[in-house]
Amino acid sequence: MIIIGEKINGFIPSTLKAIEARDDSYIKELAEKQSEYGSSYIDVCAGTDPGTEHDTLEWLIGLVQETTDTPLSIDSSDVSTIIDMLPLANKPGLINSVSGEGEKCDKLFPVIADTAWNVVALTCDDENGIPTDPKVKAKIAGDIIEKAAGAGISQERLFIDPLVTTLATTADALASFGDAVSIIKEKYPDVHITSGLSNISYGLPYRRSINRVFLTLAMSAGMDSAILDPTAEDMRAAIYATEALLGKDDYCMNYLTAFRNGAIGQQ
Amino acid sequence: MIIIGEKINGFIPSTLKAIEARDDSYIKELAEKQSEYGSSYIDVCAGTDPGTEHDTLEWLIGLVQETTDTPLSIDSSDVSTIIDMLPLANKPGLINSVSGEGEKCDKLFPVIADTAWNVVALTCDDENGIPTDPKVKAKIAGDIIEKAAGAGISQERLFIDPLVTTLATTADALASFGDAVSIIKEKYPDVHITSGLSNISYGLPYRRSINRVFLTLAMSAGMDSAILDPTAEDMRAAIYATEALLGKDDYCMNYLTAFRNGAIGQQ
Repeated sequence: MIIIGEKINGFIPSTLKAIEARDDSYIKELAEKQSEYGSSYIDVCAGTDPGTEHDTLEWLIGLVQETTDTPLSIDSSDVSTIIDMLPLANKPGLINSVSGEGEKCDKLFPVIADTAWNVVALTCDDENGIPTDPKVKAKIAGDIIEKAAGAGISQERLFIDPLVTTLATTADALASFGDAVSIIKEKYPDVHITSGLSNISYGLPYRRSINRVFLTLAMSAGMDSAILDPTAEDMRAAIYATEALLGKDDYCMNYLTAFRNGAIGQQ
Repeated sequence: MIIIGEKINGFIPSTLKAIEARDDSYIKELAEKQSEYGSSYIDVCAGTDPGTEHDTLEWLIGLVQETTDTPLSIDSSDVSTIIDMLPLANKPGLINSVSGEGEKCDKLFPVIADTAWNVVALTCDDENGIPTDPKVKAKIAGDIIEKAAGAGISQERLFIDPLVTTLATTADALASFGDAVSIIKEKYPDVHITSGLSNISYGLPYRRSINRVFLTLAMSAGMDSAILDPTAEDMRAAIYATEALLGKDDYCMNYLTAFRNGAIGQQ
């Protein structure tokens, strides 16, 4: 499981407060803890207004790289901002994100073609907005994957996010996610599938119980990455247990190691 | 989800202590709590030596029926003992269990044919022991279902338990369970599928995390019943969230009701 640590994000109120106060130690602790608990990437998202986004991202990137060797996930809805940040990274990481909207792919793909940067691609575009139909999700994903291939970017560098819809309003949100994954993986078996976990539970109480179960069922449907809080023990336990049950953890070695070193089961 | 409350079982050390001390109030509280938290059946298993099993079951059945209207699940490996207990029940419930072993089905089925008793059937027999091959599990299930049909017992009255194997020793335990369910349900769509949850995690630490995830993945594979502890909040939360995500809870009404009445989310 490829974990993208989500905590350094200005859309999270406690993190926004630390960003506004330029609280170095708070951000560094988020970076350290998320690395310690198995993040493959540390997401950095300013969540501030466009005028200060550059400055904030630069500051966040500096702090994360002072703290850990875990690669960055540079998170902005503005592709030009992301491109501006790439030279600040000590090594290639993840770009979060492009989509079928506007010129995002056309702007970014030539810049990263000859690098080792990976990229999250959301299944939305100008024509369809955020579609609920799995076939439309898969069509948008296919267009992005083909465009990437044309630029010399292989499937393994793409993390497709099929943008799960909200369970409270869409009873078949999980089934639609799973169908989109099946269609995409059948044609493009080497892409990664990722997802933010929190959309699924929007509007419902006790969201973490929905998020936790969605994580398991989405992994069962072929998701091999997620944007989540790895400092939450219940999420870690769900990941290790799900990988073991799905036959992706020989002799439960990862599960047992996580238990022995206290990453799970201490609560 | 059809929940069979597992707590009144002499193989659980704390319950055995209460049984040996003939502690009425302890047993009644287990019955009450399990009913309150949504059990469809209250399992009673003596777990004592054969010499005292009759007396113990009789005492347990009496206490449960003094406490709650929730039907009994009469649990014994000895079919003759189960048959002896049936007249003590105020109303039909569940028999736990028969299997392909010996004369179990031949003894029980004629006795319950013209009643409304349901029955758990384990996929083991004398020839194969407890098989790991899903085709063999399904074959044994099919033999029992056909035998039941011959006695006039319809599919809906049967709860097939495909006897999940231990993850620590069988990496594909979940896949094999799921395959068995698929084969059985394709031919016999109206049978229920049930499972004790704890076998899967035998020999592993932090068993509840494995059990909880297995519950979700097994429900996704078609399991519609489980023998579990409904007084554990994490199990209840997993059930409600899984049913909502699998599209079996319109508008998340059951999930929302469970939250509002405090059955989930208060921890």
